[in-house]
Amino acid sequence: MSLKQVCVLGCGALGTVLANLVANNVSKFPEYKPTVMWYVRSEEFSKQRLVDVIKNNKENPKYAPGISISDKVIVCDDASSVTAAADVILFAYATRHVNEILEVMKQHMKKSVLFVSFSKGLVVPEPNSQAQQKDICLVSEEIQRVTGIEPVVVSGAMTAKGLDKAELCEATIGSRSKEAADEVKRLLETEYLSLTWTTDVITVELCGALKNILSVAAGIVDGLNLGANTKSAIIRLGLYEIDQYCHSMYAKYDTRQSTLLESCGISELFKCILCQSDAMPQLGDDWDVFNLLIGRMMSEPQYAGMTLEQIQQSFNPDYVASGPDTAKKIHAQLNSLHLCEMYPLFTAVHLICSRIVPATMLIPMLRHHPAHR
Amino acid sequence: MSLKQVCVLGCGALGTVLANLVANNVSKFPEYKPTVMWYVRSEEFSKQRLVDVIKNNKENPKYAPGISISDKVIVCDDASSVTAAADVILFAYATRHVNEILEVMKQHMKKSVLFVSFSKGLVVPEPNSQAQQKDICLVSEEIQRVTGIEPVVVSGAMTAKGLDKAELCEATIGSRSKEAADEVKRLLETEYLSLTWTTDVITVELCGALKNILSVAAGIVDGLNLGANTKSAIIRLGLYEIDQYCHSMYAKYDTRQSTLLESCGISELFKCILCQSDAMPQLGDDWDVFNLLIGRMMSEPQYAGMTLEQIQQSFNPDYVASGPDTAKKIHAQLNSLHLCEMYPLFTAVHLICSRIVPATMLIPMLRHHPAHR
Repeated sequence: MSLKQVCVLGCGALGTVLANLVANNVSKFPEYKPTVMWYVRSEEFSKQRLVDVIKNNKENPKYAPGISISDKVIVCDDASSVTAAADVILFAYATRHVNEILEVMKQHMKKSVLFVSFSKGLVVPEPNSQAQQKDICLVSEEIQRVTGIEPVVVSGAMTAKGLDKAELCEATIGSRSKEAADEVKRLLETEYLSLTWTTDVITVELCGALKNILSVAAGIVDGLNLGANTKSAIIRLGLYEIDQYCHSMYAKYDTRQSTLLESCGISELFKCILCQSDAMPQLGDDWDVFNLLIGRMMSEPQYAGMTLEQIQQSFNPDYVASGPDTAKKIHAQLNSLHLCEMYPLFTAVHLICSRIVPATMLIPMLRHHPAHR
Repeated sequence: MSLKQVCVLGCGALGTVLANLVANNVSKFPEYKPTVMWYVRSEEFSKQRLVDVIKNNKENPKYAPGISISDKVIVCDDASSVTAAADVILFAYATRHVNEILEVMKQHMKKSVLFVSFSKGLVVPEPNSQAQQKDICLVSEEIQRVTGIEPVVVSGAMTAKGLDKAELCEATIGSRSKEAADEVKRLLETEYLSLTWTTDVITVELCGALKNILSVAAGIVDGLNLGANTKSAIIRLGLYEIDQYCHSMYAKYDTRQSTLLESCGISELFKCILCQSDAMPQLGDDWDVFNLLIGRMMSEPQYAGMTLEQIQQSFNPDYVASGPDTAKKIHAQLNSLHLCEMYPLFTAVHLICSRIVPATMLIPMLRHHPAHR
């Protein structure tokens, strides 16, 4: 039997660290080739090709500075050949680039490939897809639509920096196949990274997308100085809404409330709300913290005259927080279904981020929350 | 039909605020007497009797300074007569005083009384009870043993100060009777305090007791500077152990994992771990934060030569953190049942607080956690 090739797609901080981690793990198992292929897309760094900089310096200075890249990681800038070689794909792409790379990959993938997605969030359906703009499209759904392959999803409280420093981390594997989950566990698990498995793929992925709305809400509470009782209550109400959403909108799947208690649920949320800093997250940190910052600023009086876009751009024109965007997409869907009143927190976050209502309306909008009926 | 008398027992910050809150609520419903009786035990403040100070100043300067006491609250220092008059008892006693007051109350209580307990934690069984020292005894079990009445329990992320300031708060009612739960909800609910009901009394109360162990663990993580991924993972593993404990040790009750997602579970925990201050909690604050501080100090090198007791006494000789004490009691029970390896976090917290193992053993002790099998 020929040895299986593991490939990593995504040259951000998480992709870089995953390539290292898995390269170390594959050597322990006889069924894998001892090196990992890593696709680094064509872009520039200091007027050189990033892929060349990485090859020469054994470091990714653009997205993961300070992290040495293992000799067992083979860097390649040709997505087609990496995809064609892959028996296992670890896919760690920012959601905004997902459509683009999938279009390239789909022509080259083996039908038997094990596709593992670390991407969180909602993608905008392609204009030529059957989905409506008001429809919610998960990354896994988009992967399946474009490539025909049902991916395994991995989500949890693990940042690239945390993994690189060998901090104790946990993550949740969402997979309908036990065999696939076992293989992912074998490939990823280390002394410091533990994985649990659930068949509830939908909730694993939706937690990853929807917790960003809760992070914005937590930031709004901070900005309004509402205190720890209120912050705790609001996060709990948010988890209630995530549970309701998974259960109602994906009724044909076997979604389970218990998945919220996995790393993909409460731990991801803990990690974000524990942040007290007003500084932007750095490369390899928890990028969701940007949602918390945006929430804080949306509710502080000194930014009352600024729109969400202006606040985001005050950091960097390229930065877009995922929370307000997710809240907007979810709101469009809920609104079209006349379900907004079942989701007062999701609704409030969208209306506050759109400057349709002031941040001080957060609490009044949560009175008579369905959780309290 | 004669009007029902509501009485509050407990003159700490929460008792004070509850007396005010309920005095305001009873006047809205025709079945209650328009005033609330409040038992203030015989103790001194500034060389006067506390009960006289409270009566004269309409304030409880010892436990709830700055909070005006409603004219509808009738202060009384005779526990027997307050108990005898009560149709509804709101019981907000520190666990260490529970045995003592119950002995007084038991002779005077109406058989029909609605007994609502806000006390959290484990009591030491009385020497004359059938329970062994290694047995765990919940406040509700002790109430039932001594008085014969099954109490309703209320627990959640609500501090006395938060309630007094009308911050949005939530709490969970644990009651096997819907009728009793409805009455508690009617008596306590306000524009700013929302209550949810569950029949899972055991989990509501165990969350209140066991989360203190998790707060110590969170403090240990802080002291060791282990980062947000690890802190999130450890809190999640702690919730897993709470769930296992409720399910295994109280197998004859219908305990439910979903109760962890109520205010009594995750919100209580959020509230505590959100605290970043090194200062002791103040009267009316979340006293559980003391567990977090103790955990931090137990793991910081500069306190390595000090025992738990010495660290506690460095604050105030009277202060005893409930977390290490709870961990000790739970450990004695688990050890006698040979179950320690099913609860590595509970076990680690006890062994670290007893200085049997160094704080740096926390992470190694969590390797191969049952949650990851």
